[in-house]
Amino acid sequence: MQDTICALSTPVAMGAIAVVRISGAEALKIAGSIFKSPRSGVFADRKAYYGEIFDGEQVLDQVLFTYFKAPHSFTGEDMIEISCHGSLYIQKRLIEILIDKGCRLANAGEFTLRAFLSGKMDLVQAEAIADLIASQSKNAHNLAIGSLKGGISSRLKELREQLLHFSAMLELELDFGEEDLQFADRTELNKLLSNIGADITALLASFKQGNALKNGIPVAIVGKPNVGKSTLLNALLNEDRAIVSDIAGTTRDTIEDILTIDGFTFRFIDTAGIRQSEDKIERLGIERAIKSIQDAVVVLLMIDATNCNNIDKELSDFLKMVDVTDKKLIVIINKIDKVEASKREVLTLKEPSAACLFEMSAKFGIHIEQLKEILSKLAGTFVKDDVVMVSNLRHYHALQKAENALHQAETALNAGFSNDMVSIDIKNVLFHLGEVVGEVSNDEVLTEIFSRFCIGK
Amino acid sequence: MQDTICALSTPVAMGAIAVVRISGAEALKIAGSIFKSPRSGVFADRKAYYGEIFDGEQVLDQVLFTYFKAPHSFTGEDMIEISCHGSLYIQKRLIEILIDKGCRLANAGEFTLRAFLSGKMDLVQAEAIADLIASQSKNAHNLAIGSLKGGISSRLKELREQLLHFSAMLELELDFGEEDLQFADRTELNKLLSNIGADITALLASFKQGNALKNGIPVAIVGKPNVGKSTLLNALLNEDRAIVSDIAGTTRDTIEDILTIDGFTFRFIDTAGIRQSEDKIERLGIERAIKSIQDAVVVLLMIDATNCNNIDKELSDFLKMVDVTDKKLIVIINKIDKVEASKREVLTLKEPSAACLFEMSAKFGIHIEQLKEILSKLAGTFVKDDVVMVSNLRHYHALQKAENALHQAETALNAGFSNDMVSIDIKNVLFHLGEVVGEVSNDEVLTEIFSRFCIGK
Repeated sequence: MQDTICALSTPVAMGAIAVVRISGAEALKIAGSIFKSPRSGVFADRKAYYGEIFDGEQVLDQVLFTYFKAPHSFTGEDMIEISCHGSLYIQKRLIEILIDKGCRLANAGEFTLRAFLSGKMDLVQAEAIADLIASQSKNAHNLAIGSLKGGISSRLKELREQLLHFSAMLELELDFGEEDLQFADRTELNKLLSNIGADITALLASFKQGNALKNGIPVAIVGKPNVGKSTLLNALLNEDRAIVSDIAGTTRDTIEDILTIDGFTFRFIDTAGIRQSEDKIERLGIERAIKSIQDAVVVLLMIDATNCNNIDKELSDFLKMVDVTDKKLIVIINKIDKVEASKREVLTLKEPSAACLFEMSAKFGIHIEQLKEILSKLAGTFVKDDVVMVSNLRHYHALQKAENALHQAETALNAGFSNDMVSIDIKNVLFHLGEVVGEVSNDEVLTEIFSRFCIGK
Repeated sequence: MQDTICALSTPVAMGAIAVVRISGAEALKIAGSIFKSPRSGVFADRKAYYGEIFDGEQVLDQVLFTYFKAPHSFTGEDMIEISCHGSLYIQKRLIEILIDKGCRLANAGEFTLRAFLSGKMDLVQAEAIADLIASQSKNAHNLAIGSLKGGISSRLKELREQLLHFSAMLELELDFGEEDLQFADRTELNKLLSNIGADITALLASFKQGNALKNGIPVAIVGKPNVGKSTLLNALLNEDRAIVSDIAGTTRDTIEDILTIDGFTFRFIDTAGIRQSEDKIERLGIERAIKSIQDAVVVLLMIDATNCNNIDKELSDFLKMVDVTDKKLIVIINKIDKVEASKREVLTLKEPSAACLFEMSAKFGIHIEQLKEILSKLAGTFVKDDVVMVSNLRHYHALQKAENALHQAETALNAGFSNDMVSIDIKNVLFHLGEVVGEVSNDEVLTEIFSRFCIGK
């Protein structure tokens, strides 16, 4: 990590401005050797100098040149930012010149990796930068900003401190082992472990919603054949995404598309109509539909108003097939345009249920905006301002391992195992929590994490 | 122009960094109102501050914030550059917030327009910025840098000064009109005008090559049907660009593609084979082929080695059809792979000619690299380091008008017209030279010029 790296930090495309960043001990020496400014010579920290970049004897470009002195830079190393004209030729040539003068082209995420290695941020914050850059909706953005500002990190730090306190008490007893003293009350210890366990469980539980906010909330559109599922998808997207026909069983593959409503990204999944079918391909489609329901966070169950006299029975039939206990279910009575007002009375749920009932006509767009509003409000309940949410799969897996180790510690404690046995489990919990923030890490994990970054970050 | 403008100055795409620029009297007030930094309060000129941009109560992003105080900024106005994370959401939202706080979204090229209007640069330099950003090859880039650094501008300034000197002498004579004095020797005046005329003519003459360097050197690939023109295009591009078959007349439309060799951009134009044809569509293609030759700077005339016993005759037949006096002609003897070595002797030009003769096999790539080398060397002769080149069509047209006015002045002078008549012509010359650098301009022209810029520049 002693070499000096450079990369284009703005998108590789023509634009008004492009920014090239250089980081490492030689940054000022290398970049300074190709830059001439009326006032150059000494570069004040963080001051933008106007001048010319030279390609041999020729002027490559007129640029702004800013020096960020170590350790108060993004990477913690000496850094230079060159803001040049956004021509593809200049971008390419400037990088070539810098490499020629002794820089190495940065790997994906290497600036952030150096920031992490020099202690400028922990691993959760580094990952939050990648998430922040990838964010395309308000709520994905808010999650990433929360992590970047240290939300999860400080939550985990608290947990680690509690565990270290716990561990210290056990160690103390070990030191006085021969005297068989118990400094710590077992009941107290049990209570502490149980509290920490509850915190980890709460973090794990936030993952489904956190992940949905980050990657899009999966909404499965399901129901019998020909109830208007594909028509609803098209109406939501306002385009002809799915093929629509009067023939039952038109949709076979699950069709997915993304729509952002009020800052929430939804992934709508149109599925094959669920019925008994002899058609092999259709049966495969139905299997996929049921799988989609399992993966969904929101389920839109569509019922054909022209072909239903007992909503309660339809609903209970559906609930026999799939388990929606941990999902938000919205029952949609579709095709109300075809039903006389007088007949619509029967279309109410007799038994009160958690399901939200909703009348619409997907074909004519009746109540489509109201449906979007319901979805937006529902997604809004996922956002809890003061609660730290986990949205990263790596964090989720590490927390699962921490939870397992914690349960083992609890078991060991309750079974009256010796303190050193319990200590090993506690150390495992600390290890897995440490994995999340990067206090414990290895090259393989770091390579994996930073390879998902863009070049130049 | 009193309002404060903002725009994204980096390409609209996901990237590590995005830069938003704000210019105008309210720039610091508006941008400062949404930025909080540990050290904020007073912003030193050209210093990058690290801090947070706020979206209401929430943090939108952690950014670098740099203030460029008027008049020493790019636009000459107060400017702010915000370097944020390159998320599409942040880019969009930051612009929205700035507009909400009182900025207006900048028009295309409006930052550069303001730089021009505040006297930071002339119109040639402003246009050079657009050319610089669009440049994709070394030589297009060098032309633009030359103009940006004032190459053409200072050349025109010299011409204008000479004309003003000339004009001053005429005016002096007018002042003493009744005494019928002649301060200026008519021969001297004539000589001065003729020198200025020669300079303008030289600038005009540089346009064809300057434009070729900027937009790509047009190279027409021509010849009889089935001599391998499309095969050559494909071999040059190293891809299956044009449909190739043994059937004469396969190519009908002219097919164009771009290739950069050694920093020179070439626009290769594959044409229909030229022959007498009854086929109406083919005849239209042949017309286009001849048109392509007229527009070309380099003509590659291909001759089939297996079907030719007299190169001189083929060449002279071709030269009867098209005029290549002002073009570089390269005669290519193709398909040498099919010809025995002993027979190849006849394939030489008996009459020495300006044409360069070249043997190859496009199909097997024999001598393809050598052909590229010849083209590169040929293009190299266009580049004259110490000569100012015109590459902009607007400049070319204005210089043409200046040349016409100058000829009228010469005629008037020689015909012994009165000084005030000659003066009017000289003022016309000055007017048209002034149009180039923008000393004379109107809103329509400015709108036309800056609309071709990208947003954010």
